[in-house]
Amino acid sequence: MKKNKKYFNPIWGSNFNKRINSLMEEINSSIDFDKRLALQDLKVSTAHCKMLKKQGIITSKDSSLIISGLKKIKLQIQNKKFEFSKKYEDIHMNIEVALKKIIGDVAGKLHTARSRNDQVGTDLKLWIKDAIKEICSELTDLQKIIIKKADSNINTIMPGLTHLQSAQIVSFAHHLMAYYEMIKRDKLRFLDCFKRLNECPLGSAALAGTTFPIDRFLTAKLLGFEKPTSNSMDSVSDRDYALEFLSIIAICGSHLSRFAEDIVIWASEQFKFINLSDDFSTGSSIMPQKKNPDSAELIRGKTGRLNGNLINLLTTLKGLPLTYNKDLQEDKIPVFDSFDNLFISIKVFQGIIKGMNVRKKEMLDACNKGNLIATDLAEWMVVNLKITFRSSYKIVAKIIKIAEKNNCQINDLKTEQLSFIETNFRKKIEKFLKQKNLINYKNSFGGTAPQKVKKAIQKANKDLF
Amino acid sequence: MKKNKKYFNPIWGSNFNKRINSLMEEINSSIDFDKRLALQDLKVSTAHCKMLKKQGIITSKDSSLIISGLKKIKLQIQNKKFEFSKKYEDIHMNIEVALKKIIGDVAGKLHTARSRNDQVGTDLKLWIKDAIKEICSELTDLQKIIIKKADSNINTIMPGLTHLQSAQIVSFAHHLMAYYEMIKRDKLRFLDCFKRLNECPLGSAALAGTTFPIDRFLTAKLLGFEKPTSNSMDSVSDRDYALEFLSIIAICGSHLSRFAEDIVIWASEQFKFINLSDDFSTGSSIMPQKKNPDSAELIRGKTGRLNGNLINLLTTLKGLPLTYNKDLQEDKIPVFDSFDNLFISIKVFQGIIKGMNVRKKEMLDACNKGNLIATDLAEWMVVNLKITFRSSYKIVAKIIKIAEKNNCQINDLKTEQLSFIETNFRKKIEKFLKQKNLINYKNSFGGTAPQKVKKAIQKANKDLF
Amino acid sequence: MKKNKKYFNPIWGSNFNKRINSLMEEINSSIDFDKRLALQDLKVSTAHCKMLKKQGIITSKDSSLIISGLKKIKLQIQNKKFEFSKKYEDIHMNIEVALKKIIGDVAGKLHTARSRNDQVGTDLKLWIKDAIKEICSELTDLQKIIIKKADSNINTIMPGLTHLQSAQIVSFAHHLMAYYEMIKRDKLRFLDCFKRLNECPLGSAALAGTTFPIDRFLTAKLLGFEKPTSNSMDSVSDRDYALEFLSIIAICGSHLSRFAEDIVIWASEQFKFINLSDDFSTGSSIMPQKKNPDSAELIRGKTGRLNGNLINLLTTLKGLPLTYNKDLQEDKIPVFDSFDNLFISIKVFQGIIKGMNVRKKEMLDACNKGNLIATDLAEWMVVNLKITFRSSYKIVAKIIKIAEKNNCQINDLKTEQLSFIETNFRKKIEKFLKQKNLINYKNSFGGTAPQKVKKAIQKANKDLF
Amino acid sequence: MKKNKKYFNPIWGSNFNKRINSLMEEINSSIDFDKRLALQDLKVSTAHCKMLKKQGIITSKDSSLIISGLKKIKLQIQNKKFEFSKKYEDIHMNIEVALKKIIGDVAGKLHTARSRNDQVGTDLKLWIKDAIKEICSELTDLQKIIIKKADSNINTIMPGLTHLQSAQIVSFAHHLMAYYEMIKRDKLRFLDCFKRLNECPLGSAALAGTTFPIDRFLTAKLLGFEKPTSNSMDSVSDRDYALEFLSIIAICGSHLSRFAEDIVIWASEQFKFINLSDDFSTGSSIMPQKKNPDSAELIRGKTGRLNGNLINLLTTLKGLPLTYNKDLQEDKIPVFDSFDNLFISIKVFQGIIKGMNVRKKEMLDACNKGNLIATDLAEWMVVNLKITFRSSYKIVAKIIKIAEKNNCQINDLKTEQLSFIETNFRKKIEKFLKQKNLINYKNSFGGTAPQKVKKAIQKANKDLF
Repeated sequence: MKKNKKYFNPIWGSNFNKRINSLMEEINSSIDFDKRLALQDLKVSTAHCKMLKKQGIITSKDSSLIISGLKKIKLQIQNKKFEFSKKYEDIHMNIEVALKKIIGDVAGKLHTARSRNDQVGTDLKLWIKDAIKEICSELTDLQKIIIKKADSNINTIMPGLTHLQSAQIVSFAHHLMAYYEMIKRDKLRFLDCFKRLNECPLGSAALAGTTFPIDRFLTAKLLGFEKPTSNSMDSVSDRDYALEFLSIIAICGSHLSRFAEDIVIWASEQFKFINLSDDFSTGSSIMPQKKNPDSAELIRGKTGRLNGNLINLLTTLKGLPLTYNKDLQEDKIPVFDSFDNLFISIKVFQGIIKGMNVRKKEMLDACNKGNLIATDLAEWMVVNLKITFRSSYKIVAKIIKIAEKNNCQINDLKTEQLSFIETNFRKKIEKFLKQKNLINYKNSFGGTAPQKVKKAIQKANKDLF
Repeated sequence: MKKNKKYFNPIWGSNFNKRINSLMEEINSSIDFDKRLALQDLKVSTAHCKMLKKQGIITSKDSSLIISGLKKIKLQIQNKKFEFSKKYEDIHMNIEVALKKIIGDVAGKLHTARSRNDQVGTDLKLWIKDAIKEICSELTDLQKIIIKKADSNINTIMPGLTHLQSAQIVSFAHHLMAYYEMIKRDKLRFLDCFKRLNECPLGSAALAGTTFPIDRFLTAKLLGFEKPTSNSMDSVSDRDYALEFLSIIAICGSHLSRFAEDIVIWASEQFKFINLSDDFSTGSSIMPQKKNPDSAELIRGKTGRLNGNLINLLTTLKGLPLTYNKDLQEDKIPVFDSFDNLFISIKVFQGIIKGMNVRKKEMLDACNKGNLIATDLAEWMVVNLKITFRSSYKIVAKIIKIAEKNNCQINDLKTEQLSFIETNFRKKIEKFLKQKNLINYKNSFGGTAPQKVKKAIQKANKDLF
Repeated sequence: MKKNKKYFNPIWGSNFNKRINSLMEEINSSIDFDKRLALQDLKVSTAHCKMLKKQGIITSKDSSLIISGLKKIKLQIQNKKFEFSKKYEDIHMNIEVALKKIIGDVAGKLHTARSRNDQVGTDLKLWIKDAIKEICSELTDLQKIIIKKADSNINTIMPGLTHLQSAQIVSFAHHLMAYYEMIKRDKLRFLDCFKRLNECPLGSAALAGTTFPIDRFLTAKLLGFEKPTSNSMDSVSDRDYALEFLSIIAICGSHLSRFAEDIVIWASEQFKFINLSDDFSTGSSIMPQKKNPDSAELIRGKTGRLNGNLINLLTTLKGLPLTYNKDLQEDKIPVFDSFDNLFISIKVFQGIIKGMNVRKKEMLDACNKGNLIATDLAEWMVVNLKITFRSSYKIVAKIIKIAEKNNCQINDLKTEQLSFIETNFRKKIEKFLKQKNLINYKNSFGGTAPQKVKKAIQKANKDLF
Repeated sequence: MKKNKKYFNPIWGSNFNKRINSLMEEINSSIDFDKRLALQDLKVSTAHCKMLKKQGIITSKDSSLIISGLKKIKLQIQNKKFEFSKKYEDIHMNIEVALKKIIGDVAGKLHTARSRNDQVGTDLKLWIKDAIKEICSELTDLQKIIIKKADSNINTIMPGLTHLQSAQIVSFAHHLMAYYEMIKRDKLRFLDCFKRLNECPLGSAALAGTTFPIDRFLTAKLLGFEKPTSNSMDSVSDRDYALEFLSIIAICGSHLSRFAEDIVIWASEQFKFINLSDDFSTGSSIMPQKKNPDSAELIRGKTGRLNGNLINLLTTLKGLPLTYNKDLQEDKIPVFDSFDNLFISIKVFQGIIKGMNVRKKEMLDACNKGNLIATDLAEWMVVNLKITFRSSYKIVAKIIKIAEKNNCQINDLKTEQLSFIETNFRKKIEKFLKQKNLINYKNSFGGTAPQKVKKAIQKANKDLF
């Protein structure tokens, strides 16, 4: 910050008596972050200029000059030759000032029939549309990796958990495919948000529209929007698209955080269901034996940021009167930050899943604890012994109590330990308990029977969008 | 809370050695709030029962008995005769216990091939679907009221504000229609959420599906869903629908808070743009002259609750491993609370808009301050005097400075005060400044020219959904 | 809600032309929740009345009448005979109306020199002071239970975890005492908040103070405050005490959530470090073998609520102009809800810790996995073999690699497997690896050596406040 | 990000088989933000080194070498010559690697008896202590500026508002001093937080303490702490200090947001109570007449960020098991961001208050609207006409109604218009209504009578800390 070089603003400083305060410059300038909108801003200016020409508001010659200037600026930016300056507040003014340096006073015609209020909304909408495309593409890649890992683990058996307690045997592929489903919903939400980003605010001007004979349908079309927005006052006040984007990211982040929690638990010495690959783990500065799942922990930790960014913008928008207020400048930082952090999280998750080593033996061993067969037995009794589910539940509960007393699993109980059951019944039960592959019977739609999981994977592969 | 009457749980208490602790009952029981799901739960049980019969899992006779019992319970609930008890934890168990009292042990067959984990998800999805319908209907009513108020104020002129500073003249109808647009987007979001609520989790059982030969497509259909969910583990863990519902409500709430802020400001002594009707105002216990816009303030204040409920569930879901965890029981309170508070807010807003008295004279008077014509003049100069916008901006800025020095509006300046301008130019400018109805020229699409606003209102009336 | 019985407000309705709208009543009335302030409100009115008498603003006779009326109302409330009515908006008006019924028009003198704006602030401050006392008392009880459990587990050895990975051996008592420390800080924060609740807003009236010759120091003293607040406009706008209370609760809740996570993980089949007592567990409606740690999960789940309530009030207060605005009415629900949920969580945690069964054998067994001794060895080598820590770290890392290849712990390695180490060194190392009770050496201040933990427990017992 | 240059980590990479993945580096590296801890980290290392020497754990010679190396690094950093590298993850490792380059292998002795887990906690605590000092100093300056502005406006009369409605006449100084009070409480909270930052975690090592004979009391003292922390497991898990810091900032931010809202409203054309100085205002790119209060709006907008950062860390900490988890790395960004944004907000506020021009005439004029005298009249009638407050309230309400019908203020009513009042009464009332300077009577403690406000200002000046 150049503390001592006060100046008048070149765009709006005409009737100000005092130069801007350096603190004011510090808080007011947004160029440090809104320079990320540079390419969008150039695109918007180019479309605006074409429209002005078509409508006869500026001449062909001026239009050509301006567009050539904008192209030069684009090159400067792409080649990192463009110098962004706090002095010119924001990306719009930085570009306008640069344009004037290149093409002279005619640059002053570009800002005809528009305001920074409609311009920044258009820029940000374009940016978010691009961001959604990038995220969805990465989510699809993550889905593919999940599907592939699932496909090679259809018959990998593990204890399914509720309340982190052993509940019933499930296929590891089935567990993985639960995440496929979550991501599918995330993508659908992003696409709905994208769909709602189809209206172009450009031409709403400061708040009221303009007296120039502009063609907003043309700029909308040139910029890839479906149509212009319907109300100029709403257009410069609206940040719904940012809020919706942030809330979808937060929901997506909650999925990644749950996935990450599973990974961290599975990688523990006590569970030992997986081994993370070395290139997605880190060590300790003091404990030489450590291999830590930092990758998953960091993704889990970033949930805070995604939730925080959402609350950030919701708070900022609360109680703002119409129309544009400078508070809205604070919209961009949470949007960029949530995008960046979700993006890296998805990429890292791809690496985690791809690289992780599934310890099938340990998973299988774990299935022999916790009487995971209990519900199957209860269900089987309902069908085969013709009793109500509540009755069968109570009998199984009794059998389990006996097993616990004898410090064994119910499969290990001996005939005499089950003597309280009527002989005929008991024999059938004993036979049932000796069966293997009970998981195959859990073949209700959406259930964990491997044949069902296989079909689900096939369908997923086909459905990928 | 009956502190001294400990008991074993009638459903799952079979192999527990200690009766439930009264504190545990207090924290664990959800009946105080999930009783709101009663009708949904009965609907789900009825559909489930029909499917069990169709699949031959229970007999026709048992099915009829169960369904007749459920009907009786429904009547009891509707007639406020049903006694909900903390002893039976939640709505599912309260109903199962009641059913047993009515039809005896056969009640125990109802819980075949399902778990409370899939049951509660189905209940809540049904509840939210109903809630979305109710909210959208009220939002449409609010839109109608806005449209009507706008329609009678197309030619009501007021200062449009940016930064709460007078910016340009706008039509009051145009300002109101900005809110129509926001609500339109809210409804679209609710409808997208509704669309994503089309998958039925019932039959996912505890987490893994079931060994019974159930038909999940049938229950889905009977309950008005499009199809069953695809993955049982996801089904019992998923609360996306609640998160999405809460985030859409929060966004909608941000709109209402902005609207409320406008109302509060307009109703102030200093603005005096509107008078709230007495039946949506309150007085002071100590200041006899007061008439306060409490209705709008309360709506604005409730934004906190809507944001808080969203963060509540996002926090709860963060880092939960698959599949069902009891933490998820905490999902319902924020969902109910956000619905209730958004609902009453919309209803009250309808009353506020309907009853408010627009003070056209004060609005018009306010248009004569703040040089609201400045931008029009600058734009007019570009077109008519063939100069760049940046040049015309500077000339107008200079004129304003002169007016400020003379403590008047630019329209009031006299020829000699504008002598710095070339005579020919100056005369044109003076003529322009004498014009009325400049608002008519702001007729870009989406702009505030009354003729455009009128069209926007007509379109809105036609588009209403 | 009585939809058809519209009425004028008895207190402030004098110059209103329209009766209150039933929707307005619904949103405006706070009696459903602020009736929890009833006893505080009576206390405040009594003190106010005494002061009015002392200052000669009302007569002794009137004062006696009013105070006797307030006493009767108190009895009615305590005996649940008081009927709270939405018609009278809030607790203040409900009591004033009831008072009038009992003592007649003289009741109208009570509201002299005060407003509901200062009254409700005083009520709420008193309520929070009581709430802090209750919470601190329960936190102290929880600390006692932790200390007791720790005291009987000083020599219980378990793997200490970082990143949920086995890190170093620790005493179970040491782990428990970490929570003692967190709670100690929570209590200190609550006490600081209490300390800041020492200023009484009563007498600030609506916003500006009053023309009556009141004695605010007297009411402050009668109500147990240290002094009156210094600025009347601040007094009726201020909700800092509620924000601070909510933020301390949220921090405390984050501790409980971490404790709960530990409990849930320890209770898993794979860790099996503890058994929760049956009376703080629940079963499954479908899986007969389940015993779930619902108590801990619910506490963890309630974190969402505590964070949500904090954001709720922070959002509500954002951007409110001075002084009192009706939005502030929304302060009480989050305050009450956070208190209730924190309170029950602490109580349940007491029961969890008290009742939980520590599985010492399983903890000890777990110490024989994950090379928990690695850091000790590295540290020992620095001291005894005179090498830098970075060098010793690398040697130990190499030893671990060999052990991993041989699928054993480093203690199990044989001489030939360590042959890469210089003989003399190696022998010393082998001797070190054979040692038991290495935990005793970790006796830096605050470390896990049992002798240090014992001292920490003794100190904690002494320090309890 | 150098995508193709994979490497093993120099500190913990010894037994890793795969080089770190570039994505992993990207997500795992914290040097981009934790370099702000550089000076604190050097201070901590220096103190640690001195202690190691004193305890005979390292030699005097080694200690001198290390300390001289650290000094060189400090110089490099201060002169911006130090190159921070993502390759070395964080500030700790960046410095350790640099130290090795300067002094060779002996650098490896510095990490004896400590871990990055205790090191980063110590660094961050020191940083926050400094931050608190800086903020409190700026808050004191803001208080001074407020006091000064208040002092010159004791007799500036304005309408005090509740519900943004004119309520009673107040002194502008009184309004300003309300903010003095808020800031006083903020500072007290910061100081309590500072007080709780008095325990040094250094020496807790990874989680369990260390076998080296360290002296934690010495390092604590050298670093300006009061004592070492009591429990090593708590020490490396604890982020209470960051949470408390963030929550105090959020509360302080809520004050600034309310102050900013007042400023924005006062600066509006309709209120016109103040003029912001040009150097804290900005203009419009399209509307030449605009002077916008962007400074205040930005401060108000930043509330979102402060609330978001608080929720960020609360979310991250939710449900983290003990002890250190990598999620905790995400603590620093919200801490730094909240500090930076609060800091600039306070600085800018100083400029706003200092530079703003108070429009006394407009304030005074506004006092003649809205019957601000109504409450005074009601209170006066209680004292002078010996009626209850409720009765006097009703009479005044009636008078107001008459005035409203006659479109005038109650002061303007004529005798015949008040004929409903008993003659004797009416005459007294008429006399009262003719009085000026009624504000002087509102001289209850904390009230707005200028003589009271003057005393409050004098006291504030004396109390400043």
